[in-house]
Amino acid sequence: MAAAVAVAESLQCSGGDEDGGARINSLIANNTYEAAYPLHDGEYDSPGDDTNDRQLLYREWARYGVFYKFQPIDLIRKYFGEKIGLYFAWLGLYTSFLIPSSVIGVIVFLYGCATIEEDIPSKEMCDQQNAFTMCPLCDKSCDYWNLSSACGTAKASHLFDNPATVFFSIFMALWATMFLENWKRLQMRLGYFWDLTGIEEEEEHSRPEYETKVREKMLKASGKSVVQKLGTNMTENEEEDDEDKLTWKDRFPGYLVNFASILFMIALTFSIVFGVIVYRITTAAALSLNKSTRSNVRVTVTATAVIINLVVILVLDEIYGAVAEWLTKIEVPKTEQTFEERLILKAFLLKFVNAYSPIFYVAFFKGRFVGRPGSYVYVFDGYRMEECAPGGCLMELCIQLSIIMLGKQLIQNNIFEIGVPKLKKLFRKLKDETEPGETDSTHSKHPEQWDLDYSLEPYTGLTPEYMEMIIQFGFVTLFVASFPLAPVFALLNNVIEVRLDAKKFVTELRRPDAVRTKDIGIWFDILSGIGKFSVISNAFVIAITSDFIPRLVYQYGYSHNGTLHGFVNHTLSFFNVSQLKEGTQPENSQFDQEVQFCRFKDYREPPWAPNPYEFSKQYWAILSARLAFVIIFQNLVMFLSVLVDWMIPDIPTDISDQIKKEKGLLVDFFLKEEHEKLKLTDEPAQRSLGGGQRSTSRAPSSAPSGRSQPGSIASSGSQHTNV
Amino acid sequence: MAAAVAVAESLQCSGGDEDGGARINSLIANNTYEAAYPLHDGEYDSPGDDTNDRQLLYREWARYGVFYKFQPIDLIRKYFGEKIGLYFAWLGLYTSFLIPSSVIGVIVFLYGCATIEEDIPSKEMCDQQNAFTMCPLCDKSCDYWNLSSACGTAKASHLFDNPATVFFSIFMALWATMFLENWKRLQMRLGYFWDLTGIEEEEEHSRPEYETKVREKMLKASGKSVVQKLGTNMTENEEEDDEDKLTWKDRFPGYLVNFASILFMIALTFSIVFGVIVYRITTAAALSLNKSTRSNVRVTVTATAVIINLVVILVLDEIYGAVAEWLTKIEVPKTEQTFEERLILKAFLLKFVNAYSPIFYVAFFKGRFVGRPGSYVYVFDGYRMEECAPGGCLMELCIQLSIIMLGKQLIQNNIFEIGVPKLKKLFRKLKDETEPGETDSTHSKHPEQWDLDYSLEPYTGLTPEYMEMIIQFGFVTLFVASFPLAPVFALLNNVIEVRLDAKKFVTELRRPDAVRTKDIGIWFDILSGIGKFSVISNAFVIAITSDFIPRLVYQYGYSHNGTLHGFVNHTLSFFNVSQLKEGTQPENSQFDQEVQFCRFKDYREPPWAPNPYEFSKQYWAILSARLAFVIIFQNLVMFLSVLVDWMIPDIPTDISDQIKKEKGLLVDFFLKEEHEKLKLTDEPAQRSLGGGQRSTSRAPSSAPSGRSQPGSIASSGSQHTNV
Repeated sequence: MAAAVAVAESLQCSGGDEDGGARINSLIANNTYEAAYPLHDGEYDSPGDDTNDRQLLYREWARYGVFYKFQPIDLIRKYFGEKIGLYFAWLGLYTSFLIPSSVIGVIVFLYGCATIEEDIPSKEMCDQQNAFTMCPLCDKSCDYWNLSSACGTAKASHLFDNPATVFFSIFMALWATMFLENWKRLQMRLGYFWDLTGIEEEEEHSRPEYETKVREKMLKASGKSVVQKLGTNMTENEEEDDEDKLTWKDRFPGYLVNFASILFMIALTFSIVFGVIVYRITTAAALSLNKSTRSNVRVTVTATAVIINLVVILVLDEIYGAVAEWLTKIEVPKTEQTFEERLILKAFLLKFVNAYSPIFYVAFFKGRFVGRPGSYVYVFDGYRMEECAPGGCLMELCIQLSIIMLGKQLIQNNIFEIGVPKLKKLFRKLKDETEPGETDSTHSKHPEQWDLDYSLEPYTGLTPEYMEMIIQFGFVTLFVASFPLAPVFALLNNVIEVRLDAKKFVTELRRPDAVRTKDIGIWFDILSGIGKFSVISNAFVIAITSDFIPRLVYQYGYSHNGTLHGFVNHTLSFFNVSQLKEGTQPENSQFDQEVQFCRFKDYREPPWAPNPYEFSKQYWAILSARLAFVIIFQNLVMFLSVLVDWMIPDIPTDISDQIKKEKGLLVDFFLKEEHEKLKLTDEPAQRSLGGGQRSTSRAPSSAPSGRSQPGSIASSGSQHTNV
Repeated sequence: MAAAVAVAESLQCSGGDEDGGARINSLIANNTYEAAYPLHDGEYDSPGDDTNDRQLLYREWARYGVFYKFQPIDLIRKYFGEKIGLYFAWLGLYTSFLIPSSVIGVIVFLYGCATIEEDIPSKEMCDQQNAFTMCPLCDKSCDYWNLSSACGTAKASHLFDNPATVFFSIFMALWATMFLENWKRLQMRLGYFWDLTGIEEEEEHSRPEYETKVREKMLKASGKSVVQKLGTNMTENEEEDDEDKLTWKDRFPGYLVNFASILFMIALTFSIVFGVIVYRITTAAALSLNKSTRSNVRVTVTATAVIINLVVILVLDEIYGAVAEWLTKIEVPKTEQTFEERLILKAFLLKFVNAYSPIFYVAFFKGRFVGRPGSYVYVFDGYRMEECAPGGCLMELCIQLSIIMLGKQLIQNNIFEIGVPKLKKLFRKLKDETEPGETDSTHSKHPEQWDLDYSLEPYTGLTPEYMEMIIQFGFVTLFVASFPLAPVFALLNNVIEVRLDAKKFVTELRRPDAVRTKDIGIWFDILSGIGKFSVISNAFVIAITSDFIPRLVYQYGYSHNGTLHGFVNHTLSFFNVSQLKEGTQPENSQFDQEVQFCRFKDYREPPWAPNPYEFSKQYWAILSARLAFVIIFQNLVMFLSVLVDWMIPDIPTDISDQIKKEKGLLVDFFLKEEHEKLKLTDEPAQRSLGGGQRSTSRAPSSAPSGRSQPGSIASSGSQHTNV
């Protein structure tokens, strides 16, 4: 180790906020120092040392064995600072909120299982006697087929496509609102006990990159005279006058690069999704040429395509994280806080598009541009656009969702969060062993804490942890109508995630600087944005992707006896086989009798109508019903959310009572002091009575800061808030 | 005057907040005092007295002659206190925001006027050669008629039913968001200059009614022992223990009465609206029996019905105001603030339903339950449900809106705000003259200010003023798609309203107690609620009430040459006259040739179709388009509003810079003080260095209160914020 290691001992050192911190940071940037970090409280696994907080945290929190326990939030805050404390409090609340939604999700799923035998449409589809002859799924090599052969998928899709999911998605929208409201309350409570209510965003120092850029600009602008000026008052540079700011004009190239790169990367994501579609279409076509592989084309193609999607998502996720950081650096934001906010926004946008675009494709676009028998839509000269399975796209959406969600969680948890750190540690160890010259042999037996901590990974911020959870929150809320088991999987993941993160912080990372923040910042806005978006996305999944509305319309509008008997027949249009284009007929049909009409899933006029194959009246009636459902669902759920938001006060009653009481005490105190002052000073002071009254009326305003003492006493005392 | 008149001189006396105020209030309630009010600054019309703020206000603000001037907001605040200052600042901002929307509204209207000759559908309707024979509008006595006879209304409705109104309603939704955002900023700015940032809701004393109720409860609960206890510590009652609170159980009857009464009154409003409908139907039927009145049935009926509606609205408005107050008293809210909030919410709900239900009826329900020729819907045994005029319901909606809005404004301004106070004053004068015994003859020549002020009306709060403006805001935003001139009328009204209110406050009311508030309270929530509701209401007006969507669908879906030629024919269905029910045929038709088919406005299958008179495919296609428009419009506008909200920072940059600067000064000051302390105390104090650092890091939190001095200096100085 060529350079010294600066060790910051103060727990409350808020990294870079004070001048000292800023100077250390620039020394690290200079490579004068190699690292600066607060020390851990000794070893986490040394037994019998009860004053060691790190060990206490390890024993009570950072092990999988204690997964059932509440988190010791106050201790976490004490050891790691408020910012990390808030993260774990948030994660804890989110995980505990997943419990009720998991239970209801499982009930909805079980309801689907229980009613599977009573579902008339899937019974009709499975009926061998009354089989419908369907039009071939590909040109030439595919034969006509019996709808009863899709019996399995029909039954499976009933598991998720039943009326209970409608109620579940309304429930989940309200759940999201409740969660956010409760988080606000918990944040208030923690803020009160941790004495955070008074902190406002402090004026932060400019980032070094910003200052450099400003200096460059000034150099360019005013020539050498400025250089001299700079030479003399380099240190007074912090009091900026109007000249030395980056204006919109200076930033324009940066913004342009940002805008262009983000557009490019979104386009890249879309084209990869499109590429996977092309892969699916071509592979399906190729496989169905070969007789031996024809039977399980769909399974093979779907499975491989989803895996490709998953791999692409995981790889791009890492790339986009790096790109977002690079782009934010180009933008040269002024303060550390704006840097973080812009980085998060960009990274979120890119990762959101990356994770969800294949799912959005399956949910809303797949199978809608197929055309119809006799006039299919072809891409790349001869490949038909892909359709959904006969059970509807909802089943496929469900498969896609579950694989991507589970795969992402498992792989990211195992590889990126467990594997990579282990590898890094190994690599570090190997490196240390190859250059052993500088390590003292006396130290190696009883190494100092700073040496021990130096071998740990540096802490790099909470952004990846939050991002992972937010993307998961999206999986749980955005498409819950198609996959009611999502909350269960999220819950299982998070029970592990909490301890995994805890272990990482306690055992594998250098102790982070304690940072005081009042809230979780921009993440809350992103969460609430996802919550709002989930309302419209679920409305569309139920209305457009699922068969819920067509069934309702059939049952109450077309059915003769008010049941779903005949629904399957109603959803299938007729096609006159003689109108198939030359060369697209099945080559060697195995059907016994001559097929005259084949059926396909759409609402179109029959061949004998005056305007054959146009969309039928049913099509438009059902479309109207679908859209009406979207409007009603969206407005109803939004209204309920506002109601929930309004009914749950943001500040818990006990806290607001407490604050009021403390204010009252403070006012009394000030009044008394004022009175005593009056007594001391004589008659000449009589005129200052007015001033005294004024300060009385303003006294409550200074309460938040004055209140800090009782607050911090309460938090360091016995009152531990468990989450 | 039997009782004395208490005169409060302190400007900052916040009515009822301090013990003195509370006691005076209870003395007034006891009838020991007759009234208590701060004094006016002398006469408003005595010339040449420049130190008299009242006179300055009168000269510069409270006259119609100065309507073009900005309001002297700081002077208003100085004279009337912050609460009234905020009201006039809000009113001023609202009025100035109405200017751009008026301009664009007029442009949209002029666009309608300019394109009236080019509008193909109305040209087709007016074409005498190509006339459509329409089905009779009533049974028996009405004849078939030519569509060209409705040429006038068709042209008139084009004025409001053109594509420009779509853009105008998007603009108005964004306008509402911009207005609210800018109000937030202005409120922040005023709050800064008026030193309001630090005020939090102070703990208010319970209302006397609440205390009485609690006492009654305690008496009942614990018998006589409690009475004795009460007798001794009546004054210590403010420190309530858990027993003496009104619980949910105690309040239940009150809530029940509230709920039932509100439901009853809403039902009453609806039934009155229904009554007016019945009036319209029956009168129309009666008038059309008589040949001489038949020609102008529609005009007569519509005009009288709207006037009835208007009178009902005005009368019920007053009644509902009183009822809301009575209901809130029954509820026994604990503090004055909750009382005000609940009163406002109730009054708003009732007045909103009252003012808008006839308009909602015309916009969304009128003409939708008519049935079709041959199977009309009848009410009350023989009366057909009313239809809209051939030009569409939008025209009627526009008439309804303009008459109710203008009538309400003119009558309320003239009668309730000018006439009634004058009458009251007259009445007061007469009463004083009849009992002249007690007025001193010496005083009558140079009367004291309190005597002069006693003859003025007492101040009763800002609720009616706000309520009037909020209901107007509703007229301006909710149906702006059908009546783009609404902002102009609102602007004209408000230019007068500002001076009218000003005059009232300066010349006709006793000077109100100055009350400090940070914001306009619940009114902001109501405004933002109306803004959100206006998005969906405008979406439905454009989609359902206007002909915008059917025209688009026709132009791009059905038209042969991409123009609107043939649109009128497309909207009219055929009816076979021979299928008219027995006894409903026109008695003596004046049509020359035999009528075989008559036309009616609807999308139904023709008589020669296999399923005659069912809704046609066009009907469902157009319905889908209408609903799709609602979804797109709502989500687009909501998204844009969020964007606007996000782009305009809530705190103006100069204010936040100023706050930051002041914080910095404060931190420096504290640091210096801390340093000096350290210098004074010697080595033993070295250990308190940590404490010093802590107070540094917490110093900014106490800034809002510490900042007050510079703020108040700035505001009382030259910096007048004009609105």
